Amino acid sequence: MDCKERLAEYAAWTQRGLEEYLAPQPGLLGRVMESARYSALAGGKRLRPALLMEFYRLCGGEPRQALPFACALEMIHTYSLIHDDLPCMDNDDLRRGKPTNHKVYGEAMALLAGDGLLTRAFETMLAPGAAGIQPQWALEAAGILASCAGMEGMIGGQVMDLAFEETVPGGEDLQRMVELKTGCLLRAACVGGCALAGEHGAIRQGAEAYAHALGLAFQIQDDILDVTGQQETLGKTIGSDAQNHKNTFVRIYGLEACRRRVDELTCQAVAAVEPLEDSGFLQQLARDLARRDH
Amino acid sequence: MDCKERLAEYAAWTQRGLEEYLAPQPGLLGRVMESARYSALAGGKRLRPALLMEFYRLCGGEPRQALPFACALEMIHTYSLIHDDLPCMDNDDLRRGKPTNHKVYGEAMALLAGDGLLTRAFETMLAPGAAGIQPQWALEAAGILASCAGMEGMIGGQVMDLAFEETVPGGEDLQRMVELKTGCLLRAACVGGCALAGEHGAIRQGAEAYAHALGLAFQIQDDILDVTGQQETLGKTIGSDAQNHKNTFVRIYGLEACRRRVDELTCQAVAAVEPLEDSGFLQQLARDLARRDH
Repeated sequence: MDCKERLAEYAAWTQRGLEEYLAPQPGLLGRVMESARYSALAGGKRLRPALLMEFYRLCGGEPRQALPFACALEMIHTYSLIHDDLPCMDNDDLRRGKPTNHKVYGEAMALLAGDGLLTRAFETMLAPGAAGIQPQWALEAAGILASCAGMEGMIGGQVMDLAFEETVPGGEDLQRMVELKTGCLLRAACVGGCALAGEHGAIRQGAEAYAHALGLAFQIQDDILDVTGQQETLGKTIGSDAQNHKNTFVRIYGLEACRRRVDELTCQAVAAVEPLEDSGFLQQLARDLARRDH
Repeated sequence: MDCKERLAEYAAWTQRGLEEYLAPQPGLLGRVMESARYSALAGGKRLRPALLMEFYRLCGGEPRQALPFACALEMIHTYSLIHDDLPCMDNDDLRRGKPTNHKVYGEAMALLAGDGLLTRAFETMLAPGAAGIQPQWALEAAGILASCAGMEGMIGGQVMDLAFEETVPGGEDLQRMVELKTGCLLRAACVGGCALAGEHGAIRQGAEAYAHALGLAFQIQDDILDVTGQQETLGKTIGSDAQNHKNTFVRIYGLEACRRRVDELTCQAVAAVEPLEDSGFLQQLARDLARRDH
């Protein structure tokens, strides 16, 4: 199976998992679930669930066993996008080619749908045990997802991003922000997948290094695409970073230096997993992400 | 030790626990933690942590072992208040006698502080194991807190509350909303405390019934105080429910019927735990809450 096929398979599992863990609800409560489903089922690359299941597989696990955790991570990612798009944050109108959540459901419902997705992520991970996953491994993996998503992780990155609206960051501050805001959830995927399999050795070390390089490359590529991409392909407003007066890697270092940096980081990501058996998918994924146009 | 003393002791532990689990952070990240601390350390009754630790104690546990879970529950309660006060929700200016979080830190930071507290709650519960708590008990208790706080729990109640701004609810709908919005976190406290001790028998059944009666009595008393209370004592804007055109138990049934209902429910709460050994604190607490003036 080549990289694209496996990624598509992981994405299909994730979609079905999200359909199940976010099943429609009757009555008044149904409205918040509808709003959560609108954003969670809208597609996207499903990169984080794929990484979590793939690292679980590399550690000897049956990848579908990790599906509740993979879907939980995607819910956390989705909630962060919904809240990030709100008027008091980035005030974005378009996400994944569709109107943002609050544009469709209103601010209050978007707020609650985000809260609901974050909470549902933990409900899903903490639901009575999937066969084969030991309680202490489930606890550790859920704990990693929580801390990567928290104030010293992703939320911390969002706070730095907010602060940058007032004081323009230098390259180092920008990198730190990205490591938190984007990198932490990718780390949660890679390291969380290992933890869920009870792995604390070489694969987990590889996961840490791979996640770090991949996360930074991913965000720099995002900045490049914000300048060079096509709105239809990207599914969000082009140049929105510039409109929001945000500093980006491209603005600080220029396009060419950013492209070189993406290549360097991609090599680092590949090198981090090359020594691991059966890591072809992860190597190819890093290369494909560096060449992506959306 | 009488009821007030024990409640004060639980509150003091909770305060110290929250100080520890929400320790100040340096640098840019410090701002979101400061905002989270502003609301979490502002006091309040600390009712939920007390109930969680007390039920854990009734099940034979050392109550301080349950402190991470007790504090986590208070973080979830606090996050819900911060988000509830936001302009797109209730748009409240005053909470616990102080300006609401977004009035001090701005909407974006209040949003992130709420997200951060919810996430921190799970980080705290899932942190490497407190001695004496088995992983599967910790998993079950954290799962109960998650589902009680989720879209079929507290968030569902907030969604119903929102819907009531458009269509005035009848008494049954209002009761259902309250059972979700207020009742579910009290249930999480009582039942979660039992689950954390691995208890699935009579105490847990008592906890379910006690939480249900107490939760409803608590909210009806809140509605009564919104009409009759003193702003200084209550620490929030008096008559804010009326200003927000919210339907309340008092408006539907009148003051006298509501006072009788609080008495009835208090008797039910007391009866639910009376058969349990050493349940004096819980009985007295239910009676004290029915007589509270804030």
